[in-house]
Amino acid sequence: MYELGVVYRNIQRTEAHIADRLAAFGSATVHEAMGRVGLMKPYMRPVYAGAQVSGTAVTVLLHPGDNWMMHVVAEQIRPGDVVVAAITAECTDGYFGDLLATSFQARGARALVIDGGARDVKTLTEMKFPVWSRAISSKGTIKSTLGSVNIPVVCAGALVTPGDVIVADDDGVVCVPRSMAAATLDAATKREANEGEKRAKLASGVLGLDMYSMREPLAKAGLRYID
Amino acid sequence: MYELGVVYRNIQRTEAHIADRLAAFGSATVHEAMGRVGLMKPYMRPVYAGAQVSGTAVTVLLHPGDNWMMHVVAEQIRPGDVVVAAITAECTDGYFGDLLATSFQARGARALVIDGGARDVKTLTEMKFPVWSRAISSKGTIKSTLGSVNIPVVCAGALVTPGDVIVADDDGVVCVPRSMAAATLDAATKREANEGEKRAKLASGVLGLDMYSMREPLAKAGLRYID
Amino acid sequence: MYELGVVYRNIQRTEAHIADRLAAFGSATVHEAMGRVGLMKPYMRPVYAGAQVSGTAVTVLLHPGDNWMMHVVAEQIRPGDVVVAAITAECTDGYFGDLLATSFQARGARALVIDGGARDVKTLTEMKFPVWSRAISSKGTIKSTLGSVNIPVVCAGALVTPGDVIVADDDGVVCVPRSMAAATLDAATKREANEGEKRAKLASGVLGLDMYSMREPLAKAGLRYID
Amino acid sequence: MYELGVVYRNIQRTEAHIADRLAAFGSATVHEAMGRVGLMKPYMRPVYAGAQVSGTAVTVLLHPGDNWMMHVVAEQIRPGDVVVAAITAECTDGYFGDLLATSFQARGARALVIDGGARDVKTLTEMKFPVWSRAISSKGTIKSTLGSVNIPVVCAGALVTPGDVIVADDDGVVCVPRSMAAATLDAATKREANEGEKRAKLASGVLGLDMYSMREPLAKAGLRYID
Amino acid sequence: MYELGVVYRNIQRTEAHIADRLAAFGSATVHEAMGRVGLMKPYMRPVYAGAQVSGTAVTVLLHPGDNWMMHVVAEQIRPGDVVVAAITAECTDGYFGDLLATSFQARGARALVIDGGARDVKTLTEMKFPVWSRAISSKGTIKSTLGSVNIPVVCAGALVTPGDVIVADDDGVVCVPRSMAAATLDAATKREANEGEKRAKLASGVLGLDMYSMREPLAKAGLRYID
Amino acid sequence: MYELGVVYRNIQRTEAHIADRLAAFGSATVHEAMGRVGLMKPYMRPVYAGAQVSGTAVTVLLHPGDNWMMHVVAEQIRPGDVVVAAITAECTDGYFGDLLATSFQARGARALVIDGGARDVKTLTEMKFPVWSRAISSKGTIKSTLGSVNIPVVCAGALVTPGDVIVADDDGVVCVPRSMAAATLDAATKREANEGEKRAKLASGVLGLDMYSMREPLAKAGLRYID
Repeated sequence: MYELGVVYRNIQRTEAHIADRLAAFGSATVHEAMGRVGLMKPYMRPVYAGAQVSGTAVTVLLHPGDNWMMHVVAEQIRPGDVVVAAITAECTDGYFGDLLATSFQARGARALVIDGGARDVKTLTEMKFPVWSRAISSKGTIKSTLGSVNIPVVCAGALVTPGDVIVADDDGVVCVPRSMAAATLDAATKREANEGEKRAKLASGVLGLDMYSMREPLAKAGLRYID
Repeated sequence: MYELGVVYRNIQRTEAHIADRLAAFGSATVHEAMGRVGLMKPYMRPVYAGAQVSGTAVTVLLHPGDNWMMHVVAEQIRPGDVVVAAITAECTDGYFGDLLATSFQARGARALVIDGGARDVKTLTEMKFPVWSRAISSKGTIKSTLGSVNIPVVCAGALVTPGDVIVADDDGVVCVPRSMAAATLDAATKREANEGEKRAKLASGVLGLDMYSMREPLAKAGLRYID
Repeated sequence: MYELGVVYRNIQRTEAHIADRLAAFGSATVHEAMGRVGLMKPYMRPVYAGAQVSGTAVTVLLHPGDNWMMHVVAEQIRPGDVVVAAITAECTDGYFGDLLATSFQARGARALVIDGGARDVKTLTEMKFPVWSRAISSKGTIKSTLGSVNIPVVCAGALVTPGDVIVADDDGVVCVPRSMAAATLDAATKREANEGEKRAKLASGVLGLDMYSMREPLAKAGLRYID
Repeated sequence: MYELGVVYRNIQRTEAHIADRLAAFGSATVHEAMGRVGLMKPYMRPVYAGAQVSGTAVTVLLHPGDNWMMHVVAEQIRPGDVVVAAITAECTDGYFGDLLATSFQARGARALVIDGGARDVKTLTEMKFPVWSRAISSKGTIKSTLGSVNIPVVCAGALVTPGDVIVADDDGVVCVPRSMAAATLDAATKREANEGEKRAKLASGVLGLDMYSMREPLAKAGLRYID
Repeated sequence: MYELGVVYRNIQRTEAHIADRLAAFGSATVHEAMGRVGLMKPYMRPVYAGAQVSGTAVTVLLHPGDNWMMHVVAEQIRPGDVVVAAITAECTDGYFGDLLATSFQARGARALVIDGGARDVKTLTEMKFPVWSRAISSKGTIKSTLGSVNIPVVCAGALVTPGDVIVADDDGVVCVPRSMAAATLDAATKREANEGEKRAKLASGVLGLDMYSMREPLAKAGLRYID
Repeated sequence: MYELGVVYRNIQRTEAHIADRLAAFGSATVHEAMGRVGLMKPYMRPVYAGAQVSGTAVTVLLHPGDNWMMHVVAEQIRPGDVVVAAITAECTDGYFGDLLATSFQARGARALVIDGGARDVKTLTEMKFPVWSRAISSKGTIKSTLGSVNIPVVCAGALVTPGDVIVADDDGVVCVPRSMAAATLDAATKREANEGEKRAKLASGVLGLDMYSMREPLAKAGLRYID
């Protein structure tokens, strides 16, 4: 990790038929299906509401205030990828705007996830190119120092290895390691299987206390009702 | 306060004809009518814009990362209630999602106010179940430790006693103690009485300086105009 | 600077034909055209999305929790102005709501930029009076202590001298000093001139690496590609 | 709660022989003895290290940037009290410095706990008057608006009723309700009883895994060891 | 303002006999003497406790993660100066360590005030070179982009013009404009004149309520005492 | 990564003769020697000043408010280790106090680095067991949910693989991957080699501008001096 000045051109992407299907479950279900791990910090927010995507991660490590490597990573994008940008220190500068978005979209990227700032959010919204970022900022960046492309990075507290699956929606962003993607898809599918039934019961007034048989363990734990 | 492992089933709710009418004034006017107190911290934000509610508080005290008691409080909800969830330490985990919202809504709850995180915000928006929270997060929670239901709690800096009135809108959340609810409704009604007239004057170009007779006190305080 | 209890009535505003035309470029382009300076901190966010304005700054210095001077500054507004409110300490109180907005709008103000809180955001949105603020808060303020009007102020980290141009949009807020406004307009115009062409190229799949001739400097800096 | 412009002169203080003895246990043990509740937020920090106090709470509610009521509360201090200052909105101004500390100390106060800022920290350290605060700030305050003295307040997230016991040390600040003080003292005493023995065992290399018999429940929960 | 790539060699420094004497009053008294303005944000903290300095400001504007201009400003230091470093965006990188401190100290600088990070704090403490900063961080910086030296800058929310007086101590940092320095020294001297007498009175148990004759205005404002 | 409920007993530790020697260089020099990467976020602060350590990482992944696994990791400590504790969500609870410190110290641990809170800081200081943490908090934790021991974790933004070297001092915390430890030791040694000479030159008044031959590149970049 942390090799600087390198671009890995060949990465092992999670198979598309798995990566693509994870989007439908959303970040909450996918993260639960993994055992409640893999989430980015909740300061990562979408620049516009409503997008829900999954895709294979191509990664880029940037220095504070320097977006040079964003042009380098653009060339490594393949259709179905999500670009994940980490920064070596906390920085809210606007690394990414409409021109880079045009290029990323042309290369087939589905989204950008960046632990820094984005700008031109009105245009990004019109283009329907979703971005999850820690900030929105007009602050421009320079092109001066080498980072790396397609090395493992830590983005918003989550380790992302190139080829992992990124799932992002209005609730947040989760990274599914490639080796766990198939199992996670299975687990998520099972979780969702009886969600409809549960929702119908709850909507009819059945309580979770009864549906999940919680009354006994609560009583055992000592819960007292006082009238 | 801070009794753990208890559920109070009988609470004194503010009368509905008072609790219900406070919504129309909004959190800013209601808080002014109380003497500028009772507000939750401004980090409490609606998960979607435009909702404006009031209702009687049922409260729940949770531990960090543990939403077990959310199922316990569900049973104590009556139509017209707003659930207020406090946590014993700062935590942004996603305690509340679409299934609990379905259950709360079925029980007649009007909203949730939680000093933690919520998730499934797209579904919450579609269901029109408003939530005010300190964060949005996919992070799941466990069901392991007892808290309490319907004890007084501190939520986002405000003391909430079960049965108080909660007023929430795009500007924030305010808690009106039950004993002050009727007087606050009166005071808010008076504040609004001549708002329309004031607005019309200001819209016509009359200055607040003149409308509120501020020129003399400003001069007395020493204000100088320099050309 | 920091003269307290004074109102400067005559300020040198940037010429309208310059101030008005900067809005179209947006805060990111304008700040780049100035050499990447002049931005307010990214915690300044619009209370509703989509507004994009420029105008001449009239300034007001407030004390924490005290909005008395907002009424004083109202009188100094001329059509085409943007009010810039600074506070002598960090404070998120709701200094500004629908009544003041009505008054400001009647005087011809285009927007408010405030390093504090605003409230009545639903009404502000309906009125189409844009506000950029550090917070949204119902918290009311008092009218007790003198600040000043039309002195230079520091707002969200940026120095604003009365008569400077403020440009604000969904990406943030930038202040263009009056002496630099004409040159900044020129520079921004040039920056935008070939943006369309660049966008078209990038949309067709041309890489920034090639369009900006970055391959050679990257190689010189030591970038290595690994297969 | 939240009655403004009032000073309660007669409050029920926890008995001194209980309040005084809680200091020795420290905030962590006392909060555990209460069932892990009652803590102020961890942003409350001592202005100098090493102080460890307990005492009966006299409370004061202040407005942002206004320390008028600090002089009012001074008169209500009795020997053995700890002053607890809450503010109606977030504010880091320096409400308290060496002159007020001299006055508080002369009245017999043991400490100040304030959800705002303090200043003159060098002198406070020399005087050995401990303060726990959310900030250190030179920012001066005004004397303009009435708050209240000896009403229940929310300070740094904890409800404090006049007469409760405050325990504060380098780890933080905890409030023990008067009605729970005697039981908490008992529980804390029991917790400490075999601490020395435990510490000796652990120091000799015995593992908590064995001392607390955790191996079986960990195995039951599914813990696997991999060589 | 915000001229980039320039170094002003000749600045008008506040006269030494004024600048030097302000240290003794400390930041709180000096800021009060100015009318409660001019303070930097309270996130500016000394890297070690106990230093108290004043001196004339030489300023430097830096870019995020780039400390090249720190070497340029070193040459402009004269004995009695305090270096004030501002950054064009929020950044906590460690711009300043023991080598630069050695150089600054050799040139006669009394302190550094930086709206970024510092490092080598153990050595800075041993050298007795005081630094006020927003962070402590090992993060290194590059030398790539031009900023400016001795232009007006905004540092931690305060405008600092080269030649102004900086007063810093454990309570914070205040900037006194050159034009106000003499008057501020006078006002501070007067404030301190009867501090000793006041302190003696308060220490003897006299209340501020009586010493400052507050009982009448408090009663007029409506304060009620309840037994 | 993120395997839950597992304890790896056999990890590849960096050789002691390398791990031990890195402490002397401090976190800033080590991080520079690695190419300015590997640092934890600057919110990680020592609970007492002056400690400077290095050692081999044993890692533990915890859930919010749950320190059960701290007892599990204790058994895996070998003399010369530094325990690195990561948490699956942001949490400031006090996971670690004097009893665990006694146990860790008895097992030969040199320090704890935890992306959560610590308590009993007075005792930790007396014991000379250094801790770097994001917070100090009395808040107690429960023992309910399995995490893992000796899996790769993300702690305060840095990836830590078991066996890596941790270097921590008053400036912060850096993680040196095992594969880079020998090279980093060499590079750090070289960096320090001529530091003494540089410091002597700067102390004698030589400028960095001359010592590092910066005048020409600054002029090329366009720096202008104005008299």
